[in-house]
Amino acid sequence: MLHIRDAVVGSIIPNELQLSLIEDLHMQRLRYIKQVGLGYLVYPGANHTRFEHSIGTMHITREILAQIKEKNEELECVGLMHDIGHAAFSHCSDALLEKHLKTTHEKVGEEIIRTTSIKDIIQNSTLSFPKLIELFSQKGYGELVTGSFGADRLDYLVRDAIYSGVAYGVVDYQNIKDNIALYKGKPATYQQGIVSIESLLIARYSMFTSVYHHHTNLIAQGMYENAVDSAIATGEMKPEELKTLNDFEMVERLRGIKVSNELITRVMNRKLFKRAYFNYIPDTVKMQEIFEALEKTGLKPEQYAAKTIKFKGDGSEIAVVNREGGFIGNLQELSPLVKTLTSTVDSRKRLIVSCDLENVGKVKTAIEKILGVSANSEPTAT
Amino acid sequence: MLHIRDAVVGSIIPNELQLSLIEDLHMQRLRYIKQVGLGYLVYPGANHTRFEHSIGTMHITREILAQIKEKNEELECVGLMHDIGHAAFSHCSDALLEKHLKTTHEKVGEEIIRTTSIKDIIQNSTLSFPKLIELFSQKGYGELVTGSFGADRLDYLVRDAIYSGVAYGVVDYQNIKDNIALYKGKPATYQQGIVSIESLLIARYSMFTSVYHHHTNLIAQGMYENAVDSAIATGEMKPEELKTLNDFEMVERLRGIKVSNELITRVMNRKLFKRAYFNYIPDTVKMQEIFEALEKTGLKPEQYAAKTIKFKGDGSEIAVVNREGGFIGNLQELSPLVKTLTSTVDSRKRLIVSCDLENVGKVKTAIEKILGVSANSEPTAT
Amino acid sequence: MLHIRDAVVGSIIPNELQLSLIEDLHMQRLRYIKQVGLGYLVYPGANHTRFEHSIGTMHITREILAQIKEKNEELECVGLMHDIGHAAFSHCSDALLEKHLKTTHEKVGEEIIRTTSIKDIIQNSTLSFPKLIELFSQKGYGELVTGSFGADRLDYLVRDAIYSGVAYGVVDYQNIKDNIALYKGKPATYQQGIVSIESLLIARYSMFTSVYHHHTNLIAQGMYENAVDSAIATGEMKPEELKTLNDFEMVERLRGIKVSNELITRVMNRKLFKRAYFNYIPDTVKMQEIFEALEKTGLKPEQYAAKTIKFKGDGSEIAVVNREGGFIGNLQELSPLVKTLTSTVDSRKRLIVSCDLENVGKVKTAIEKILGVSANSEPTAT
Amino acid sequence: MLHIRDAVVGSIIPNELQLSLIEDLHMQRLRYIKQVGLGYLVYPGANHTRFEHSIGTMHITREILAQIKEKNEELECVGLMHDIGHAAFSHCSDALLEKHLKTTHEKVGEEIIRTTSIKDIIQNSTLSFPKLIELFSQKGYGELVTGSFGADRLDYLVRDAIYSGVAYGVVDYQNIKDNIALYKGKPATYQQGIVSIESLLIARYSMFTSVYHHHTNLIAQGMYENAVDSAIATGEMKPEELKTLNDFEMVERLRGIKVSNELITRVMNRKLFKRAYFNYIPDTVKMQEIFEALEKTGLKPEQYAAKTIKFKGDGSEIAVVNREGGFIGNLQELSPLVKTLTSTVDSRKRLIVSCDLENVGKVKTAIEKILGVSANSEPTAT
Repeated sequence: MLHIRDAVVGSIIPNELQLSLIEDLHMQRLRYIKQVGLGYLVYPGANHTRFEHSIGTMHITREILAQIKEKNEELECVGLMHDIGHAAFSHCSDALLEKHLKTTHEKVGEEIIRTTSIKDIIQNSTLSFPKLIELFSQKGYGELVTGSFGADRLDYLVRDAIYSGVAYGVVDYQNIKDNIALYKGKPATYQQGIVSIESLLIARYSMFTSVYHHHTNLIAQGMYENAVDSAIATGEMKPEELKTLNDFEMVERLRGIKVSNELITRVMNRKLFKRAYFNYIPDTVKMQEIFEALEKTGLKPEQYAAKTIKFKGDGSEIAVVNREGGFIGNLQELSPLVKTLTSTVDSRKRLIVSCDLENVGKVKTAIEKILGVSANSEPTAT
Repeated sequence: MLHIRDAVVGSIIPNELQLSLIEDLHMQRLRYIKQVGLGYLVYPGANHTRFEHSIGTMHITREILAQIKEKNEELECVGLMHDIGHAAFSHCSDALLEKHLKTTHEKVGEEIIRTTSIKDIIQNSTLSFPKLIELFSQKGYGELVTGSFGADRLDYLVRDAIYSGVAYGVVDYQNIKDNIALYKGKPATYQQGIVSIESLLIARYSMFTSVYHHHTNLIAQGMYENAVDSAIATGEMKPEELKTLNDFEMVERLRGIKVSNELITRVMNRKLFKRAYFNYIPDTVKMQEIFEALEKTGLKPEQYAAKTIKFKGDGSEIAVVNREGGFIGNLQELSPLVKTLTSTVDSRKRLIVSCDLENVGKVKTAIEKILGVSANSEPTAT
Repeated sequence: MLHIRDAVVGSIIPNELQLSLIEDLHMQRLRYIKQVGLGYLVYPGANHTRFEHSIGTMHITREILAQIKEKNEELECVGLMHDIGHAAFSHCSDALLEKHLKTTHEKVGEEIIRTTSIKDIIQNSTLSFPKLIELFSQKGYGELVTGSFGADRLDYLVRDAIYSGVAYGVVDYQNIKDNIALYKGKPATYQQGIVSIESLLIARYSMFTSVYHHHTNLIAQGMYENAVDSAIATGEMKPEELKTLNDFEMVERLRGIKVSNELITRVMNRKLFKRAYFNYIPDTVKMQEIFEALEKTGLKPEQYAAKTIKFKGDGSEIAVVNREGGFIGNLQELSPLVKTLTSTVDSRKRLIVSCDLENVGKVKTAIEKILGVSANSEPTAT
Repeated sequence: MLHIRDAVVGSIIPNELQLSLIEDLHMQRLRYIKQVGLGYLVYPGANHTRFEHSIGTMHITREILAQIKEKNEELECVGLMHDIGHAAFSHCSDALLEKHLKTTHEKVGEEIIRTTSIKDIIQNSTLSFPKLIELFSQKGYGELVTGSFGADRLDYLVRDAIYSGVAYGVVDYQNIKDNIALYKGKPATYQQGIVSIESLLIARYSMFTSVYHHHTNLIAQGMYENAVDSAIATGEMKPEELKTLNDFEMVERLRGIKVSNELITRVMNRKLFKRAYFNYIPDTVKMQEIFEALEKTGLKPEQYAAKTIKFKGDGSEIAVVNREGGFIGNLQELSPLVKTLTSTVDSRKRLIVSCDLENVGKVKTAIEKILGVSANSEPTAT
């Protein structure tokens, strides 16, 4: 009986089917896709991958199912495979998938499950393939994996926090799990779980602030996107490659392409652009305007990076129920903290523009001019 | 060289003076005052005491001083002695000190420092006694110990969370400490510290919700207060005794007094009252009205317990500064989460009334009647 | 559904019967019996009690049973109640129980189970009372609780290490548990568990060296034993009281007895004797000789404390089996480390004698003279 | 002021010089050299790199220097750079460096320091370059970094244990550090440190047993060595490349070479050989004999992997001193556990041979025949 040791959730015992899936090339590939993408350039310990996160998510899915006293092998496998479609450096490639292939990692994942050896493994088992696909698309019980306090999030917040060496993500996982209920077929919480879910949502917000949206992380991400964009623009890289290359294959691929080589090498060696602009901007601003302004500075596209980000709060839809299953209210109504997270904090779009130090002044001025907003509301960390 | 091992902050090396203070009877007494009072009746592991918390606070004070590059031996000793005046079961006796002696544990502490062997130890050292007293009264740098993100709170939130086995108190202590600045002689934070202080304030809120103000904890506390009140009412216990008795002396003392024996024995054996009422009430309601209503039920004072509580948010006064020391704003303005904690969450008073199960109906009706508010907005945990 | 939160093993859900037992006075009493006795005088955080250890042991027993795929409700209750007979300050009273009552805490425990409300609770349940008693006496599966790598030890080594703030007790509990097998009805291990059990046995040895047998701990223990001995010698305390008094009742009881008051007060305030002698001695030396030599120094019995200790290694009987259940060998033969622990390390008796600083010279000389062994092989810690 | 967050040692503040070194390409390269090589194929979380280990080692070096009250900037930099010469997958390449270049990673490291941008950085600082080189060669104080209980080992045992999710490596780092002394210019320990150093040495032994020498890890390593050997044998890879390629560059390089492609791809996808032989063998056996026997089976060199390993105990040279600096004895004499580790456990050589499942019988028989020793004394894990 194989036990997989994990630094976060302990000892995991996959069953035979799960082991076959884990051994499949598509799952093994996740060993080479870093969980927080280029975040290791900010937090040196954050080298963990989608592989261990996937196994951890399967384990937590199983524990949640035990809590609500349900058997659902398909859902456990969805927990295991929910990230199977991630491209190189995880979320760092999300915008690229959208831009060049009009797809998402979820859709790529579904494609893999529907068309590869994964399909054969499932079909040779006792599992229902249609049911698995339905759960994978986050319908019904699928939310137990990918929802506001689903297995996915319970795993990644704690895991990312531990590997990054920050404390924000340490949530009372045990209490959340112990209080998961079902309401109208969707995950809900008993009242005793409220304080822990508040904590979870706030931990998530803090992780965005300090890890996922750390400006250095975003700058590295911007440079990486540029490198890929250029490689595709020259036709030397095909958009389809995005779907299959893992982290290091992508790096080596970009190194071999002349227009991308310098940028990707700089990212790898952490010779990053500096922040020229990092502030909230009106939702109405279009990236087109930004790029035009940047072009007018005389700099070439590979000399700067620009992208917008948004923290999406959530939790408004979490039902709070009593032990008899009766509806008490929505979490957002019951918790002022959650309300703040889902209203005030939620709504703001931020722009980050970076370039080499000698061009920072020029770029900053150009952006401030078209936006009429000063360049920095954010901490100036090194 | 003595190293004190601590489960929370690691290895602590007191200097000679600090060691003398630790060895003094007034500090040793804190070994027998539980940090979260009767909280161990809810969280069995919460048997930690004011003694280790005091040593931990001294240690963190020292680390904060190192961070702001100041030497201040008096402040380190204030960190060590800030809780020296606590009565039995810590905050469980706060209302009793107020009611029967018109004092607080802080004032009792100052009295101890001014009038006992502690004074001799300080005066035989190189420390300034007036300076120490001033810091002890939380003036100026004193806030580095007792303020919103002072050493006291940094120690107790983490310590209480660990010993209780809940995760809420795990804050990014390192980052808070690394970003402490001084602004107008008071503790402030650099911008990079904001996310951690948000976390700290929310952790504090969660700890109140789930530990300090857990209904079972409050019920035990109410029964304990009743036992002491009765003992004092009959004249068998002198109010002055409150100042000196430690946890177990208090228990044995109350056991020896006829009117208190049963209540304190029940508390010790966790044969607690049940919750009859636990809800937010208007600030205008007076305890007098509550007690009159309870009297009319025909129950005797030792058959019920009633008390009000309030969560006091804070943080509004925390200045955020840049690396050059310039003022950027108040944390409350800069952080919507902190604003929520200090406004919405802050303002509400809650009443908890408990009694034996067979009287719950009667008591509940009586209270609901005079308040016009239903008995339970709170989770009904066992 | 009640969840008990624990700092060491997480969240525990007792069933109805277990909850009744936990609520019984005899279990509640364990809240006031410190797990490592007077060890908190060395490690300030070590205030944990037999109560949380008992619940933790029940939890681990349950997990071990799940691993070997057995149901055994009686054994879970034995895990819960295995320490129900402990006297004040746990092992600090063991020698006193032996001396004054010719009994052990295990026998007292069995007596409690056989004769009190505990018996009624068990007999009103579906459990077999005779089976429970048999398991309680450590027969057969009873070793899963109290054996070399049983639930008791798995809980206390980790728990004591965490609360003391030392790292020695951190064992790979998961791996030990995952590899527990049964061989001839007794706990055995698969080969993959060897390295973890080696670790466990060594952790135990380190915990003895640095916590349980820390000289300061032993000195406090000696003074406590003296206080009780004197109280019993004068007839003011009855030996039977040993069986019922908890920590603080014992302290208050001794304080009220003239001959014991000073000693127990000194222990409480950590005004301890100093070490005069701490070294290995021949097994043939009798305590009688030591006490006679001490008497000749002219000191009174309450002016010194003397006791012998021994570290008992074990593990020699652990069978190592293969996945098919076949016997591979005894752990002691297979592991040189375990062999060392059970032979060399095991066999040595140590004497510790302490008294006030001004008498240390006199006492030391007296003991060295009769033993012909120098006073100190041990570290001279403060 | 830059703070580097680390999951293991907390928050690290490099000074300006250290920051320059960290930013140098030779240090950045270590981000892409996994700390435990291919160990992530056994423990999925073990993706940590030599980069964070190097920073952690610098930090611990600094703390040790503080303990012995010395300033030694050169030594801190040695702590940072002690692993700068590691080749791809760390120790997985050690035998390759030896075989193809007659060198070690330490010598490569010294070469880097003596001849690259690193040299310029040091020479432009106030540091003594000759002193740094001397310390780097592990002379004198250099042992504080690389010795039996030096900073290197204190970091890696804990780090590897945490990331692998096993508990063996958790040592009482604090206590070891607090008791480090100097004796004749070399690191020694006070008596109070003995129990912690025992623990450390045993933790090291356990980590070898369960992580570094885990059979799956060794099999992957053997296949990797084969892949490189073949690539070099055909002349397509130059031995010198070993010195510069990082993990992923090595993988992509080998993929591009026909004879190596299959083996390296199998390693990456964890399609590993199975164990045919894993047992202790006489020291006199030569690998030549083994390879000849394997050749006779008719299999091609790329169809099997064979290598020998040895656990090297140590610690015999650790002096134990008293607080006055006087010599008490060697640790090995004073501690039976350490003696066992350095004698019995130490001396044995082990051979591991692996191949595809269908060839296991053939290979096993061939090896058993020439050695006269049965194939398995080791646990048969999956």
